[in-house]
Amino acid sequence: MKKTIGVLGGMGPLATADLMAKIAKLTKASCDAEHIRVYVDSNPAIPDRTAAILNNGPDPVEEMASALHHLEACGADCIIMPCNTAHWFLPRLQCLTKTPFLDMTKIAAQCCAERFPGKCIAVLATTGTLATGLYEKALAEQNVPCLLPNEKEQTVLMHLIYEVVKASRPLLPEADAWHALLDGMRERGADVFLLACTELPVLAEGLQESGPFIDTTEELARAAIRFCGYECLE
Amino acid sequence: MKKTIGVLGGMGPLATADLMAKIAKLTKASCDAEHIRVYVDSNPAIPDRTAAILNNGPDPVEEMASALHHLEACGADCIIMPCNTAHWFLPRLQCLTKTPFLDMTKIAAQCCAERFPGKCIAVLATTGTLATGLYEKALAEQNVPCLLPNEKEQTVLMHLIYEVVKASRPLLPEADAWHALLDGMRERGADVFLLACTELPVLAEGLQESGPFIDTTEELARAAIRFCGYECLE
Repeated sequence: MKKTIGVLGGMGPLATADLMAKIAKLTKASCDAEHIRVYVDSNPAIPDRTAAILNNGPDPVEEMASALHHLEACGADCIIMPCNTAHWFLPRLQCLTKTPFLDMTKIAAQCCAERFPGKCIAVLATTGTLATGLYEKALAEQNVPCLLPNEKEQTVLMHLIYEVVKASRPLLPEADAWHALLDGMRERGADVFLLACTELPVLAEGLQESGPFIDTTEELARAAIRFCGYECLE
Repeated sequence: MKKTIGVLGGMGPLATADLMAKIAKLTKASCDAEHIRVYVDSNPAIPDRTAAILNNGPDPVEEMASALHHLEACGADCIIMPCNTAHWFLPRLQCLTKTPFLDMTKIAAQCCAERFPGKCIAVLATTGTLATGLYEKALAEQNVPCLLPNEKEQTVLMHLIYEVVKASRPLLPEADAWHALLDGMRERGADVFLLACTELPVLAEGLQESGPFIDTTEELARAAIRFCGYECLE
C-alpha cells in the first residue's frame, strides 16, 4: 500500500497551498486516483517562528504539536512542514512522534550540491532562519559555499516576506526592490538563489526574474512524493 | 472563538490546492495569525463521481466518509467539498455527521442571481454534474435562466477537465478549443460562464479569456470565510 503525507501547515497559509499544488503538479499521474493522499492541518495560530527565535516570543511548539497529533490521528506516514524557520523546532517535534519528519533544510542543501556543484548559493531566508544557522550548517555538510544577505538586503527581504506575501499585498509594486536585492547579491558572487523561506516562491513566481532559483518548497514536495513510493515529474 | 474549516478534498488534488489558496487570499488578514485554521483530507482514492452517476461506477461515499471522519476528529466546524459533482452525494454524507456542509451549488446559484440579475448563465460542468440536474435546480430556485453545452461542446469540456487539468497537461495548446467553446455558447445567448467544475478555474486562470466567469471555488471560499466569522476581501 502506498504511503500518505501529513502537512504541518499554516506557516503561512499561502505557502501551505503552494506546497499542495506542487505535490499535485509534480506527481506523475494521469487521473485523480494516481495521486497521493495528503492530510493537512493549516494552523495559522502557530506563533511566529522568527519572533520566538529572536525576541523571546511565544514558543510555537504547543500549537505545532496540536497539528502534528491531528496528522498522526489521520494516519500520515511522514510529516512535512512548509516553513523553513519552523525547522529549528523539528528536533523537539520529532521527540513527540514516531512518524518521521522529512527535513526540508537537508533536502534543499543536497539539491544545491547535486544541481549546482561548485556554485555559490545565496540563502534568502527570514532573519529567524538565518539566526539559527540551519542552512549554513546544512550547506557546509554538503561542502556548498554560501552567501548571506547584508543587513540592508535582509531588511528588504523581511519586508517582502511579512508585509507583502504574508499580508496578501500585490507583488508588482515590489518588483524593483526584489530585482535590486538579487542584483546586489549577484555582484558579491551569488550564482544561485535558494528560496529558503516558503513565502518566497509566491514572490519569485509572481515577478519575472531569471534567478536561477532553488525552491525549497518544490524540493520538499519531490522528496515527499518519492518517500511515498510515487514517481516524480522532473 | 472563531470557527475552523474542514476540506473534503482530492477531487482532484489541484482543485483542492486552488481552494486553499483562495481561502488564504480572500481572508482579510495582515499576518498568519489572522487566518483561518483549515483541516484538509485530500483523498484522491475517492472513486470518480461522474462514473458513479452515469455508468454505475464504484460508489464514492465510503471513501468520502473516511475523509469526513478525519475532518470531524480534527474538530472542523463546517465541511466544504471542492468538487461540484460530489455534491450529488451531499445528502447521504450529511446524514453521517452533525457538522454542517456548506453547499457550493446553492452558494454559486445565489451568487449568479445577485451579481448578474436577468443574465443567462452558461453552466460549465462535468457530464455527471449536468446529469444530476443539480445546477439547473439550484439556478431555477433563484429564477436564473441558464444554458447548457451541446453534445459537441460537452465532449470538449470533458476533454479539458479529464485529459488536461486532471492529467496535469499543459494548458496553452488548449487555448483555441476553450475559446471556441465559449464563443459558441455566447452565440446561443450565454452572458456569463459558471465554472461549475472546480478544475475549470485552473484552466480559466491559465488561459486569457474575458468570460465573465463565476468561479464556484471562489464563491465557496467566500462563504466558508464568512461562516467562520472572518472578514472576506472583495
